[in-house]
Amino acid sequence: MNLQQTLGVELPIIQAPMAGVQGSALAIAVCSAGGVGSLPCAMLDAAAMRHELAVVRAATNRPFNVNFFCHRVPVPDAARDAAWRRALAPYYREFGLDIEGVPSGPGRVPFDAAAAELLEKIRPAVVSFHFGLPDETLLARVRGMGAKVLASATTLDAALWLERRGVDAIIAQGLEAGGHRGHFLSDDLTRQSGTFALLPQIVHGVHKPVIAAGGIADAVGVAAALAPGAAMVQVGTAYLLCPEATTRPAHREALASDAARHTALTRLFSGRPARGIVNRLMREVADATAPAFPLATAVVGPLRAAAEARGSSDFSPLWSGQNASGCRACSATELTRALAGR
Amino acid sequence: MNLQQTLGVELPIIQAPMAGVQGSALAIAVCSAGGVGSLPCAMLDAAAMRHELAVVRAATNRPFNVNFFCHRVPVPDAARDAAWRRALAPYYREFGLDIEGVPSGPGRVPFDAAAAELLEKIRPAVVSFHFGLPDETLLARVRGMGAKVLASATTLDAALWLERRGVDAIIAQGLEAGGHRGHFLSDDLTRQSGTFALLPQIVHGVHKPVIAAGGIADAVGVAAALAPGAAMVQVGTAYLLCPEATTRPAHREALASDAARHTALTRLFSGRPARGIVNRLMREVADATAPAFPLATAVVGPLRAAAEARGSSDFSPLWSGQNASGCRACSATELTRALAGR
Repeated sequence: MNLQQTLGVELPIIQAPMAGVQGSALAIAVCSAGGVGSLPCAMLDAAAMRHELAVVRAATNRPFNVNFFCHRVPVPDAARDAAWRRALAPYYREFGLDIEGVPSGPGRVPFDAAAAELLEKIRPAVVSFHFGLPDETLLARVRGMGAKVLASATTLDAALWLERRGVDAIIAQGLEAGGHRGHFLSDDLTRQSGTFALLPQIVHGVHKPVIAAGGIADAVGVAAALAPGAAMVQVGTAYLLCPEATTRPAHREALASDAARHTALTRLFSGRPARGIVNRLMREVADATAPAFPLATAVVGPLRAAAEARGSSDFSPLWSGQNASGCRACSATELTRALAGR
Repeated sequence: MNLQQTLGVELPIIQAPMAGVQGSALAIAVCSAGGVGSLPCAMLDAAAMRHELAVVRAATNRPFNVNFFCHRVPVPDAARDAAWRRALAPYYREFGLDIEGVPSGPGRVPFDAAAAELLEKIRPAVVSFHFGLPDETLLARVRGMGAKVLASATTLDAALWLERRGVDAIIAQGLEAGGHRGHFLSDDLTRQSGTFALLPQIVHGVHKPVIAAGGIADAVGVAAALAPGAAMVQVGTAYLLCPEATTRPAHREALASDAARHTALTRLFSGRPARGIVNRLMREVADATAPAFPLATAVVGPLRAAAEARGSSDFSPLWSGQNASGCRACSATELTRALAGR
């Protein structure tokens, strides 16, 4: 039985979970089209998570994916936080904002017992993890609820590590992918490979099904990724213009423009390298200034809000993969079918 | 007529020109298998170039490719040269070598009138350029001898630039590719894309045939690259273990080992970013220290020679793409047929 049959879906398409730019609506639309819709939980508090999960569960009896981050919560570092505030202070002055009152909030929380408890009530068919896996106890709970477990690998070593821990399938995330890189064994970005190099190495190196991700934006790309042995593909960026995504107007505008041809990895929005369209913050502030993930988020937030209120995306994370050419302002159901060549 | 027919070759395979690790023998073997063999001239002086071209011309009446670099020769910078020597001095001491006597040689010369004159006698079917194109006068001479002109693009902008200048086909060089990156419009490495993202954008963006390069290492990879519309593919790394390549023993050993799973872009061996297997020099010396291309080469040379004499590849450029999984110690004829699924 191949992965698609194991998951019980008509199409080999998984919609990539994209925290901050989508919620239940996108996941539901993709499920209704016959793909695997994903609900990203990394940026949801318990109440929001409960609500969103209930909405998806009520809307579809098809398999869906719930996604979590698995980072270690960092020890706050006053010196790094102060340096970060110094770097952003000129922009706070530009917008007439007070940086003193901004709390150094956590930004994102990793998968924990509270989330597992919520999931046990919803029993999703698929749970996927980014930045590694939760500890064995938590992972056993996820397996215990009958969910298939997927996790991202950006190197062959990571894929082998995940295979040893018994995941059901491995997402090979090529360097082209938008949003957060999923590396967790090494922070050395030179170890990150393009999809064309990564995919065959993981396909040949592990015995688990492999899901290709990174740079796949249309039916031809899907076919090209399945050819070297991917069991399914995961597509994110192409969905960002769909009405079911919550992509903000300035982000949509950037994706639809020539600006989308220049993306880069940046730590500035969260503290971890993530790929987005290059904008003013990325051009003007050194990447190394950002504190550890996810501590960068809190202090950028007010700048982002103030700039967006003026219609500017100068301080917004404009997540995008290197291939935004597949973005279409059509329904996610239509896009999902089109990606599968239907 | 598609590109393969225009060039008059049986297989959609171009062997990537790889200066320093191959000469006429590899090109001839690939031609005899029905692919396009390539002779890299970037590191050959006039006598060697004349000899190698004559050898290829005598050995095959099939189309072959002659490759040149098109960089601007930099103005020597005494301060940067001194800093470079300071950075390498400890290693010179380690090997008991004298750094004072090492000349700051040019390393590589760009395509020029002398090379054009040589080519006019040989009349190769294909001439390819890296780092842009030569000036209009020189380019007209190449066209005048009936050669088809190929050139590398690492961004859509570069592809459009090359199309405006009338090249016959564009090599879309994805970030996975080994050896020198072919960028020439911008030095900003964040503009470099993985093959999966770059190829469809160039295929859709230009009217010329596109040759896919970067991370393609076996028949499945070739098929995956042709699917999104590549007219042909260019494969380099996979050939490096062939007996017809001049890859040195330490380099062969690295390619056949797990070390090949970690490549990075480095300026240390030439002054321009090129992808190779990470080794001691790359780990220990800051990339920014290297002077402008191609001035870094001369001072690394003696270290490389001394280390290689001891069987060490610590100071050798171990060029490799991100996907060395296709390297096979078989004849290049056999490999070429296998790449094409024959």
